[in-house]
Amino acid sequence: MHTYSTTVRLHHTDAAGILFFANLFIIAHECYESFLDPDVTFNSMFYELNLMMPIVHAEADYYRPLRVSDRITINLGLGHMGNSSFSLEYNIHTKDGESAATIKTSHVVRNKDGSQSVSLPAKLRKKLESLEK
Amino acid sequence: MHTYSTTVRLHHTDAAGILFFANLFIIAHECYESFLDPDVTFNSMFYELNLMMPIVHAEADYYRPLRVSDRITINLGLGHMGNSSFSLEYNIHTKDGESAATIKTSHVVRNKDGSQSVSLPAKLRKKLESLEK
Amino acid sequence: MHTYSTTVRLHHTDAAGILFFANLFIIAHECYESFLDPDVTFNSMFYELNLMMPIVHAEADYYRPLRVSDRITINLGLGHMGNSSFSLEYNIHTKDGESAATIKTSHVVRNKDGSQSVSLPAKLRKKLESLEK
Amino acid sequence: MHTYSTTVRLHHTDAAGILFFANLFIIAHECYESFLDPDVTFNSMFYELNLMMPIVHAEADYYRPLRVSDRITINLGLGHMGNSSFSLEYNIHTKDGESAATIKTSHVVRNKDGSQSVSLPAKLRKKLESLEK
Repeated sequence: MHTYSTTVRLHHTDAAGILFFANLFIIAHECYESFLDPDVTFNSMFYELNLMMPIVHAEADYYRPLRVSDRITINLGLGHMGNSSFSLEYNIHTKDGESAATIKTSHVVRNKDGSQSVSLPAKLRKKLESLEK
Repeated sequence: MHTYSTTVRLHHTDAAGILFFANLFIIAHECYESFLDPDVTFNSMFYELNLMMPIVHAEADYYRPLRVSDRITINLGLGHMGNSSFSLEYNIHTKDGESAATIKTSHVVRNKDGSQSVSLPAKLRKKLESLEK
Repeated sequence: MHTYSTTVRLHHTDAAGILFFANLFIIAHECYESFLDPDVTFNSMFYELNLMMPIVHAEADYYRPLRVSDRITINLGLGHMGNSSFSLEYNIHTKDGESAATIKTSHVVRNKDGSQSVSLPAKLRKKLESLEK
Repeated sequence: MHTYSTTVRLHHTDAAGILFFANLFIIAHECYESFLDPDVTFNSMFYELNLMMPIVHAEADYYRPLRVSDRITINLGLGHMGNSSFSLEYNIHTKDGESAATIKTSHVVRNKDGSQSVSLPAKLRKKLESLEK
């Protein structure tokens, strides 16, 4: 399991005083990138292996509003891992341990122009396996 | 049905050269706001009626990558409408009419501090009903 | 002169109820892109001519707060145009004609890895000249 | 002096492969918020003291492009401090110590509807003084 902690900042919120829903997907992706670093960087995938890993599905359930300065922690887990796809699960909770939201993202591996599926590179597969208990 | 057209801009994209997935939720919400304006504005709900309409679920399926300067159109439809909740469906397609993504958002109506569910105000109900065929 | 109109949306605002300052730079850049389209697209510069036009300076003065649903109009003008650089000026006003902000951005033209200055391509120069009275 | 370190993430970049200029203002504001926390929080200013601290001027100079996974550090310093205004200076450098950008922001203290200037609250003044050598 990978854990990522961050703080809700003013730019994450909107005039209703709470985190704007789409920004939690952005924060989740920061968690994902912090997990991949430094073993499977964007640069190594995109510029060296000429691969993209676009997200083909994303969903979030929001259980409580988050506000400026709220400290949140995300536990990242593996959903499934296939030949050329994988999914991730993010459990977001407050510093009091209360569940704030869950997010799921589904990723596919493709060549750079998106025309062909590609098998997960070995180092990515190994990295994802590290999420399994 | 409500229709919203916009253009993918540089800030929507990332270093992979395509729209960053979370930004499509932001664009969908612009569509939602353009639908509510000027009958059910944020200001009238939040400052006059002291209501919030937080999103409690959001999901997206992405069918093709979107790039800088791509012109997209969103058709907004009503999913369900309950006593204090409703959901919306967004079909996003390119100017060639190809489906690029679908998004769903589920909303609840609450008092401002989020502690109590509130019935949909009449003008919101009427507005949502206008989405039904 | 080029004119761009848009609406302040919820995601542009923050918990203080007003547009988050950095988002006005994003909106200004949308104006800039709408000006360049379709004559000098990002794609034509980046993928065909292998050029980048990074911003090396940006500044904004904010005269009044902007809020959700505010309709704003931007008048884009040319600041200076040099051999491999140019600057743009954005006057942002409300629908009542009141000045809300001014923004300036300075751009340079470089090869794709950023190592060398490049003269403004003819079609870009011509486009920028169209901003002059 | 206050120091803030963070990592450039995919959502900060655009299709040119580098950080989108406006996002550096967002990162600088995260630095500012991390400086104020927990002594002078947004909540204490906005909800308790009924004050806003809008930014009335912002400017940035960019010296080198930043890319995905780049680790950056910001040194925050005080520009000036007046009766109802202050300015901040941010020096952003890479982990190799190279200067990547400088940012300045000017802030005013106002009552919540923005109609009147207000003197800097004592705890804010004290906090800002801590930035002076």
